[in-house]
Amino acid sequence: MPKKVITFGEVMMRLSPPGYEKFAQANSLDLVYGGGEANVAISCAYLGMKAAHVTRFPDNALGKAATQFLRKHWLSTEHVIYGDNMIGKYFLEKGAVHRSSEVIYEREGSSFSLIKPKMIDWENVLKDADWFHWTGITPAISEGAAKTCLDAVKTAKKMGIKVSGDINSRDNMWKYGKTMQEVIPELVQNCDIVITSTRGIREMFGLGESGDKFGVGAKQLMDTFPKIQKVVGKTRKSLSASHQQIQGKMWNGEEYIKTKMLNITHVIDRVGTGDAFASGLIYGLLHYDDDLQALNFASAACALKHTVPGDVNMVSLENVISLMKGDTSGAIRR
Amino acid sequence: MPKKVITFGEVMMRLSPPGYEKFAQANSLDLVYGGGEANVAISCAYLGMKAAHVTRFPDNALGKAATQFLRKHWLSTEHVIYGDNMIGKYFLEKGAVHRSSEVIYEREGSSFSLIKPKMIDWENVLKDADWFHWTGITPAISEGAAKTCLDAVKTAKKMGIKVSGDINSRDNMWKYGKTMQEVIPELVQNCDIVITSTRGIREMFGLGESGDKFGVGAKQLMDTFPKIQKVVGKTRKSLSASHQQIQGKMWNGEEYIKTKMLNITHVIDRVGTGDAFASGLIYGLLHYDDDLQALNFASAACALKHTVPGDVNMVSLENVISLMKGDTSGAIRR
Amino acid sequence: MPKKVITFGEVMMRLSPPGYEKFAQANSLDLVYGGGEANVAISCAYLGMKAAHVTRFPDNALGKAATQFLRKHWLSTEHVIYGDNMIGKYFLEKGAVHRSSEVIYEREGSSFSLIKPKMIDWENVLKDADWFHWTGITPAISEGAAKTCLDAVKTAKKMGIKVSGDINSRDNMWKYGKTMQEVIPELVQNCDIVITSTRGIREMFGLGESGDKFGVGAKQLMDTFPKIQKVVGKTRKSLSASHQQIQGKMWNGEEYIKTKMLNITHVIDRVGTGDAFASGLIYGLLHYDDDLQALNFASAACALKHTVPGDVNMVSLENVISLMKGDTSGAIRR
Amino acid sequence: MPKKVITFGEVMMRLSPPGYEKFAQANSLDLVYGGGEANVAISCAYLGMKAAHVTRFPDNALGKAATQFLRKHWLSTEHVIYGDNMIGKYFLEKGAVHRSSEVIYEREGSSFSLIKPKMIDWENVLKDADWFHWTGITPAISEGAAKTCLDAVKTAKKMGIKVSGDINSRDNMWKYGKTMQEVIPELVQNCDIVITSTRGIREMFGLGESGDKFGVGAKQLMDTFPKIQKVVGKTRKSLSASHQQIQGKMWNGEEYIKTKMLNITHVIDRVGTGDAFASGLIYGLLHYDDDLQALNFASAACALKHTVPGDVNMVSLENVISLMKGDTSGAIRR
Amino acid sequence: MPKKVITFGEVMMRLSPPGYEKFAQANSLDLVYGGGEANVAISCAYLGMKAAHVTRFPDNALGKAATQFLRKHWLSTEHVIYGDNMIGKYFLEKGAVHRSSEVIYEREGSSFSLIKPKMIDWENVLKDADWFHWTGITPAISEGAAKTCLDAVKTAKKMGIKVSGDINSRDNMWKYGKTMQEVIPELVQNCDIVITSTRGIREMFGLGESGDKFGVGAKQLMDTFPKIQKVVGKTRKSLSASHQQIQGKMWNGEEYIKTKMLNITHVIDRVGTGDAFASGLIYGLLHYDDDLQALNFASAACALKHTVPGDVNMVSLENVISLMKGDTSGAIRR
Amino acid sequence: MPKKVITFGEVMMRLSPPGYEKFAQANSLDLVYGGGEANVAISCAYLGMKAAHVTRFPDNALGKAATQFLRKHWLSTEHVIYGDNMIGKYFLEKGAVHRSSEVIYEREGSSFSLIKPKMIDWENVLKDADWFHWTGITPAISEGAAKTCLDAVKTAKKMGIKVSGDINSRDNMWKYGKTMQEVIPELVQNCDIVITSTRGIREMFGLGESGDKFGVGAKQLMDTFPKIQKVVGKTRKSLSASHQQIQGKMWNGEEYIKTKMLNITHVIDRVGTGDAFASGLIYGLLHYDDDLQALNFASAACALKHTVPGDVNMVSLENVISLMKGDTSGAIRR
Repeated sequence: MPKKVITFGEVMMRLSPPGYEKFAQANSLDLVYGGGEANVAISCAYLGMKAAHVTRFPDNALGKAATQFLRKHWLSTEHVIYGDNMIGKYFLEKGAVHRSSEVIYEREGSSFSLIKPKMIDWENVLKDADWFHWTGITPAISEGAAKTCLDAVKTAKKMGIKVSGDINSRDNMWKYGKTMQEVIPELVQNCDIVITSTRGIREMFGLGESGDKFGVGAKQLMDTFPKIQKVVGKTRKSLSASHQQIQGKMWNGEEYIKTKMLNITHVIDRVGTGDAFASGLIYGLLHYDDDLQALNFASAACALKHTVPGDVNMVSLENVISLMKGDTSGAIRR
Repeated sequence: MPKKVITFGEVMMRLSPPGYEKFAQANSLDLVYGGGEANVAISCAYLGMKAAHVTRFPDNALGKAATQFLRKHWLSTEHVIYGDNMIGKYFLEKGAVHRSSEVIYEREGSSFSLIKPKMIDWENVLKDADWFHWTGITPAISEGAAKTCLDAVKTAKKMGIKVSGDINSRDNMWKYGKTMQEVIPELVQNCDIVITSTRGIREMFGLGESGDKFGVGAKQLMDTFPKIQKVVGKTRKSLSASHQQIQGKMWNGEEYIKTKMLNITHVIDRVGTGDAFASGLIYGLLHYDDDLQALNFASAACALKHTVPGDVNMVSLENVISLMKGDTSGAIRR
Repeated sequence: MPKKVITFGEVMMRLSPPGYEKFAQANSLDLVYGGGEANVAISCAYLGMKAAHVTRFPDNALGKAATQFLRKHWLSTEHVIYGDNMIGKYFLEKGAVHRSSEVIYEREGSSFSLIKPKMIDWENVLKDADWFHWTGITPAISEGAAKTCLDAVKTAKKMGIKVSGDINSRDNMWKYGKTMQEVIPELVQNCDIVITSTRGIREMFGLGESGDKFGVGAKQLMDTFPKIQKVVGKTRKSLSASHQQIQGKMWNGEEYIKTKMLNITHVIDRVGTGDAFASGLIYGLLHYDDDLQALNFASAACALKHTVPGDVNMVSLENVISLMKGDTSGAIRR
Repeated sequence: MPKKVITFGEVMMRLSPPGYEKFAQANSLDLVYGGGEANVAISCAYLGMKAAHVTRFPDNALGKAATQFLRKHWLSTEHVIYGDNMIGKYFLEKGAVHRSSEVIYEREGSSFSLIKPKMIDWENVLKDADWFHWTGITPAISEGAAKTCLDAVKTAKKMGIKVSGDINSRDNMWKYGKTMQEVIPELVQNCDIVITSTRGIREMFGLGESGDKFGVGAKQLMDTFPKIQKVVGKTRKSLSASHQQIQGKMWNGEEYIKTKMLNITHVIDRVGTGDAFASGLIYGLLHYDDDLQALNFASAACALKHTVPGDVNMVSLENVISLMKGDTSGAIRR
Repeated sequence: MPKKVITFGEVMMRLSPPGYEKFAQANSLDLVYGGGEANVAISCAYLGMKAAHVTRFPDNALGKAATQFLRKHWLSTEHVIYGDNMIGKYFLEKGAVHRSSEVIYEREGSSFSLIKPKMIDWENVLKDADWFHWTGITPAISEGAAKTCLDAVKTAKKMGIKVSGDINSRDNMWKYGKTMQEVIPELVQNCDIVITSTRGIREMFGLGESGDKFGVGAKQLMDTFPKIQKVVGKTRKSLSASHQQIQGKMWNGEEYIKTKMLNITHVIDRVGTGDAFASGLIYGLLHYDDDLQALNFASAACALKHTVPGDVNMVSLENVISLMKGDTSGAIRR
Repeated sequence: MPKKVITFGEVMMRLSPPGYEKFAQANSLDLVYGGGEANVAISCAYLGMKAAHVTRFPDNALGKAATQFLRKHWLSTEHVIYGDNMIGKYFLEKGAVHRSSEVIYEREGSSFSLIKPKMIDWENVLKDADWFHWTGITPAISEGAAKTCLDAVKTAKKMGIKVSGDINSRDNMWKYGKTMQEVIPELVQNCDIVITSTRGIREMFGLGESGDKFGVGAKQLMDTFPKIQKVVGKTRKSLSASHQQIQGKMWNGEEYIKTKMLNITHVIDRVGTGDAFASGLIYGLLHYDDDLQALNFASAACALKHTVPGDVNMVSLENVISLMKGDTSGAIRR
């Protein structure tokens, strides 16, 4: 019986010029949909889990099309709600080597940002779930989104469902009057698993030291929020837009674990790789007894996502396991 | 020395599925830019006039790309201003035969909607212009847009520049607290040329009678706003989404003029055909002494636009004159 | 509570050169999926019904992708089964005017053709269904498919679920040793609604007279198979590959009903129009008391499908009702 | 044993914006190759004949690619020669309804235009041929092309091979110092079959009367050049760029024959339709005893070409015969 | 006078999602044709040799289109035969870095698999050939294919034509009742040149030792089959799907030769690189006296193929020689 | 007040197969426009300068479209002139790794090549300019082009405008009777900045020594042409078509300056990188006091161009400065 994960967050229309074209060159824009939390759910579904995503779309043909995207990628969409008129969007211009990818967000006034807490019946949504996942983007969007997220986290906790939060956020995303320092802690204190970075721990909670001391900050975070069982992160080395290196790391309360560095020499699509890591971590923690194996699984999932166009990690369980076991050859499968 | 026309209004990103695909089928969206007033300016430019468009774009790469679209299509963009973060948009799903094209607008909160009257120095903008054109869409967008438009109309009038307004609007577009019945009259009273419909005259001004009595309403409109010199409209017969018929009509204070019906049997792109009519009318009135010829020119420009993909009428002066003179054969030119 | 329809049949990969290219011109082939019965289910889903399709796909990435196509288009795929290695296919070269579209099938040895009766637990599949639909293609594919279809029809009948069969078939499709004259009658005798043609009635059952005497044949068919409640057909006039006319007709045991002729002057995609008719009929009979309205609904759905690329009719309930009520203008909806 | 036809003339790279885009809209140009004479050869090959085309391409990768296009479309290219650096080109912007297609030629200085008479060994080329075909375009290109064409015609005549010439030309094509009135007659006097128009006969030879008196001019032409056996033409009625009508006509020395008018209501590609007519005529005269049947075949081939993208008529013998026999339904073939 | 090579084997339709898309993302599939033996013939043709391929295609429009692909790429197709209804296919999803490319074959029941020995008149086919090449794929397809291949090999040998076999095969390809150990030896004993791997030698013939001892196995193979003159292989190091290294190796009965390693850092298309090696070897052995030069030529051809999309190596003789001589710079040629 | 740069030279239509396709594979060609000097102007414009390009286009729709391309990319086109019928062209087949990109030029007889000195009123064109830039390609095209260029250089010098020349040329480009050794010196003696290479100095002027002694040659060049203030070059190391390294170098009369090597590991488009260097140099020398900073800016601009498709460097000032300051990470900008 596959495990079931529930995620909650905004799903945006992603519009990007073909190939490496600049915005001003494009006569058409490639269209997919994505959002940190839905990306996690979809990746889990491709790994064989059951997954549903909760979000709010405009009540028009674009909201329908976005829902169809989620359905196509194996999600249950029975808890998607509809209202208002604008779908969140991001425009992505893909870079290479020294040229950065550029992202322009258009989320203000979106149907999701206008969500209100009572719109979702979380007890019903979560009734047969094994895991709930949220990210630090959602509470930054609007007060309604933040409160709805908090309801979800508390309900999940109360129902005994594992909760993970990928709490990375940026100060400049918080525009509705609250700061991340005010809002995130209450969410984090109900989490079992926190995905973050040394810098995230320092900026959000004033914990940890400068330098790459992830273990120190993670330990202090767990001291502060004792329900947290694992603090997980990854080291990304950006040699260029086309060449990235990834290493998973985890403080599980007992030991500080690191994976081997994976070397992604020809990046196809860098977006959503953190979400692939999170989904790999969820899968790994649910299916392996050993934290290092779970972390290796997460890192392998993350590395593979760099080669899949779009936001979501469509690779199979078999693909991830093969890389996790050390086969980096990419040899043709016939 | 070519005549110069100035237009003012929002320019939107237009995103449409390729060919006749439905929104949910599209993996990419074709991208052009358009907006009623800029469409008029660009069409005038293709006919050989000088043309500049005044608008407000977001201060980001998409605002730049939109400006580049206007430049490419021969407009002067020196009076474009930049600010805020969202470009207006419309999504177009192209229909055929009995299936209607569907349009979804996303204009709320756009950079243009946030324009404020003092942002544009109209005396400077209009200093060497022969004609100013506005439409009934602009005052519907926001109070700032409405006031900026009124400034423009009054300044143009004061400077002795011809003013035309294509005043068609719909009640459901007016969301900021004013109605079209409150706002449009002050704009219209400074116009030389008004483009409208029997229904528009009735709904906006309570003039005219029911039935297709364009002449009656037009006459009453000119009685009410004595500065108006001509009231112009067109009869469109929509046999299907793929087959349209167009006929121009005008009340010039002395006679009621109608053109022959043009029969567009294979529509390629229906959007912007009204703007092509307006630009043809501007060109015609500036270059022909005879109102019927001007109206014939406008109708021919309108008919030709139905065969050009995108919002703007890229046909040449030669093309329009040829059709205006009766050559409907579409024979290859080598 | 929406009604639920279940369909059963092969879903093929449909590969077609872009636009009007000939096979030998294509550097790529457009890819969708389709099959008469799944087309019906999907069209019903777009009209707001619940719909599930039962089929068998290869147990590989292509079988998964085909399933994802069904999910995207709103179907429940929980009863899809997997096995063997080949997905059925058809290649479609789209014609125009005097040039016929050409279809090449590749179904022999497909995973679906290798289906065996016990593979589907029909009682479970049909447990909350309101309608079961099959077509004359399925029993022609293989003995296993024919028997599985018969099981479905009998189980549905036993469970009190309405059964419709679109029994059109061609002699040259029957290659596994049985003829349509041997197999179809047992299927038909359990049907409530039969969709067929004058020629179909004559060739399969030896009933009816020559000439376009649909009513006569239909009456004899109902006399022969007394459980049938309605015999439904349509007259298609093919003026050219680009111009078709459609008229629905029905014998309901009491009167012979015909709809007005709908005139599709610019065909976009002719495939699946019969399936759109069938889905419209199912919707109509479930939602209207009046047979003429149901038939009008079916004809309007059929006409609209001619303008939608791909196999399936993605138009909305609102679109169909609008055309059914006589609005043929295709005017833009904003 | 299939008959063999040899053709001689320039093959150009054809570059056209996708769909109905204007030149200034295109980010890419569709690429095929074409030229009146090669079009005839290829169409003959699709009808089942053997066919070779003689031309001169630049000695570079583009000349190779052009040759590969001819090979792909079944031609023998063993007599293609190479030299110099430029391939002839034409740019095609496809029109619709009242908007004309526009063609821009770039042939000056092309490798073909620099051909010299001794470069082709016509006795060898023609040794197993049944038919040689040329057009009035070739002698207009350059003195070298004209002389090479004359050599071909004379050699063919001497060898007893049937010669057809599609002699339509325009004064403004003749830029190298000779006029068509000087050059064409010597070519025509060795022809068995001349394809031309009333206007062509009048402008080139000063024969015939004004008005549509094809028969009169044709008779005078045969009186002037007694080796001519048939003078063939077609009436094209251009209702619009999207809707054409075609009727074949022939004076065979004994009677004036006309086919029924074929009505092409949805033109896909108008280019090369005259060449399709010529190839149909060649096929028809070689395979039917009856001139009317041959002319019907030619007209049907011509009509079908209007629905095939590109320069060449890729329809099959079966397609042409079906239309020639009166099946205009375009019904799907499965 | 160019040398002539004849090849025999299945040619498949190759369908692949654009770029790096996964199967489930594709709205279209890129279409080319390919098959190990035809790939060799085509590559030889691009190097300037004469080449013909013998195969069997379905007798429909797809079989024609496949033939046209071979013609376009310079092959003689006069010995292609037609029958039955299905063309062999493979679906290719292109991987990158750690993500493997995935291939799904559909060959069962294909027209080629139904070939029977007497269908090809090998004496006629081979009459002016210098070389015959086969691969280990063909005898795995069906008994008919295996026997037809054996006929070809024996006839060639009898006629004094050089025979090469690229004998790599996999146990799981053999489904018709014979094993590769039963069938391959009789084919190999008539070969002059055998292309294989250490593993191939061990699995097929039980020869050689474990570890990378190619020379040892090759020597034993030549001892077993004394007509073999050279045993050739290559070492491929797959650093990732995007980065491959290639080195040629040969035992010629006297010495064990290795080329320098070529480093393909940015793979465009990995498929057909082994066939490019084989064609380079054939060219090299026919045109160089020195085995090392021939092997260097083969390795350079192989390396270059990694940068050409599709199955076939379209690079020119000049390209191969340049790389063979050590120019790895890829500097622009103007 | 932004600085203004004027450039002069041919702008060609650039036609290239999509992706890495070979010419013979392409069904369409990607279309942009480019030319060394216009590329420089456009890159300057993207960096925030004012820029106008002077050229001559055919007086047809393609000349218009080319002008629109320049306008779109921010150039002033008021000094573009029109005449004759052919636009210059180049065909680009993009290589990878060991496969070279191949370029085929078609410039002979182009509208630009037929330019005559009096056609441009240089005093008017240059009246508010800060910089004039030319390249060694222009004087190679035709006598008219060479003389027009010399006029420009002399007029600029006389008007006190800075002049830079990128004098790289190749002997085989000079076909109209003059050699580069005859023509270039007179142009160079009026230049302030000369961009060249060790080899260029040696071949054009017989100066410098063999080996990579750029400083030596540069010094001698400045001794010979005392108005030159800086001689600038770059070292390009072509590890493969996909991997390039770039280093700027300059002799400014006092010291020999070199930048750090930039490593472009994944080339997207190699064309126009030298022009990007030149535009970076112009920007740098106009905006930095320090020659090393100017050279660093030029090198960074050059490196970034390798990642932008098309001829022109569309990167922003911010992008260049970021790389110039050492950020090679290509990290996403949100």
